[in-house]
Amino acid sequence: MRVLGLDPSLTRTGWGVVESRGSSLKCLGYGCVPTKSGEPLADRLEKIYSELEGVCARFAPEAAGVETVFTAKNVKVALLLGHARGVAVLAAKRAGVPVFEYEPRKIKMSVVGRGGATKEQVAFMVQRILGLDAPVVPDDASDALAAAICHIHRS
Amino acid sequence: MRVLGLDPSLTRTGWGVVESRGSSLKCLGYGCVPTKSGEPLADRLEKIYSELEGVCARFAPEAAGVETVFTAKNVKVALLLGHARGVAVLAAKRAGVPVFEYEPRKIKMSVVGRGGATKEQVAFMVQRILGLDAPVVPDDASDALAAAICHIHRS
Repeated sequence: MRVLGLDPSLTRTGWGVVESRGSSLKCLGYGCVPTKSGEPLADRLEKIYSELEGVCARFAPEAAGVETVFTAKNVKVALLLGHARGVAVLAAKRAGVPVFEYEPRKIKMSVVGRGGATKEQVAFMVQRILGLDAPVVPDDASDALAAAICHIHRS
Repeated sequence: MRVLGLDPSLTRTGWGVVESRGSSLKCLGYGCVPTKSGEPLADRLEKIYSELEGVCARFAPEAAGVETVFTAKNVKVALLLGHARGVAVLAAKRAGVPVFEYEPRKIKMSVVGRGGATKEQVAFMVQRILGLDAPVVPDDASDALAAAICHIHRS
């Protein structure tokens, strides 16, 4: 089973692809789509969409996992995050990849074993579970891989 | 000049196309993309995207006008609105239609002559400016036409 994890945001959308082989998990790739705050909104959204479209074409995942979001620092942040998340979900959907949403607590539970785990603990365990030599940078990509791991564990 | 106006929301995304012919404005079409709250988010976003993609193909607008949004009732509403707005802006952008954003006050000013105009006043003036026999229903389509009229006036 091959799963795409997504961690969308307008400034940096993380993605990561995990494959399960028996009981072990392998990271096939990960990355981040950065966009500049000075650029027009439409250009930023198109960049996120196009890069994720490319990721789906390259890795042909069978499913996508993404964190549910109910909260944000404020309304303005929520609006911007919503734009990026909408476009990221659309990119997977239009590539024929079914999208599954998971609550942050469930993702942490699945990766660390504790729903209240810190960001650092998630990053540490993502590296360990996937047997990677170095920590996954940036955080956004690590969080995306965590969402992918969560979907595999729960499928 | 042919302009697409957009009024995105997850439940009902309004659209309208206005053409300027000399000093008069003509409505070429308008409508609304409804989505059901019980459906998966990815399906709802794809419906909005696909229908707007179809509108762009059918009317070949040269530009798109959309209201800027900085406020919402709460963070949850802002997140959902952001998803729809991101997908709507992306649909125009990927159809090669440049997207222009206008503050609500500027749209009202452009259509009614007063930045503090009510929704009803905007609807009344949209019908009048475009010489339509009946009021534009629903509000979302009327607001989308107002955004298109604003872009034409300001170009």
